[in-house]
Amino acid sequence: MYKIKSRIWIETDQGMFLGNGRVQLLKAIDETGSLTKAAKSLKMSYKKAWNLVDSINKNATQEVVQTTTGGKSGGGATVTDYGKTLIQKFDELNEQTIAFLNDKMYELKL
Amino acid sequence: MYKIKSRIWIETDQGMFLGNGRVQLLKAIDETGSLTKAAKSLKMSYKKAWNLVDSINKNATQEVVQTTTGGKSGGGATVTDYGKTLIQKFDELNEQTIAFLNDKMYELKL
Repeated sequence: MYKIKSRIWIETDQGMFLGNGRVQLLKAIDETGSLTKAAKSLKMSYKKAWNLVDSINKNATQEVVQTTTGGKSGGGATVTDYGKTLIQKFDELNEQTIAFLNDKMYELKL
Repeated sequence: MYKIKSRIWIETDQGMFLGNGRVQLLKAIDETGSLTKAAKSLKMSYKKAWNLVDSINKNATQEVVQTTTGGKSGGGATVTDYGKTLIQKFDELNEQTIAFLNDKMYELKL
């Protein structure tokens, strides 16, 4: 009858670092190799996507997105190995939290 | 460096059932014995508080808030034993989730 829901995110002293929306953006960058294409696929403005990536890179302990500017194609963007680890661990934490809470709710029998 | 944050809430097939805001309202009702006073203490309109309580009661498996209308004092509101259990279990789940995630983040060493 009752379903327990959760949302997780990671902060630094500067505030929001990584949540669902930012992880979606990183995944889209990893798939498209381009910030422009990633933003478009999420119906997000390029400016907003750029600001999010800038915030992620500035607050991460290691670089998360590498961008190459200029060139015929207008530059590309790639998620670093560290960035891929962050995505993977975030997804795992999310799934573990969901499983943890479902178990707890089942025990409670509210 | 990174801090993991979480938010939990309980839904039914009808949507939101119990989250932070609704639990705060239930606690305020329990403390004041009055929906009017509870709403005021949370700077919430009486209409909004009433709607939230109505939604909670309609979707719960047992009554959560009992209201008595009329009388000189304009009626009172009390949280049932079942409602108190819900508040307590929600707070416990929240704390357990925070502890669970802090442990996981510590293990990850991101």
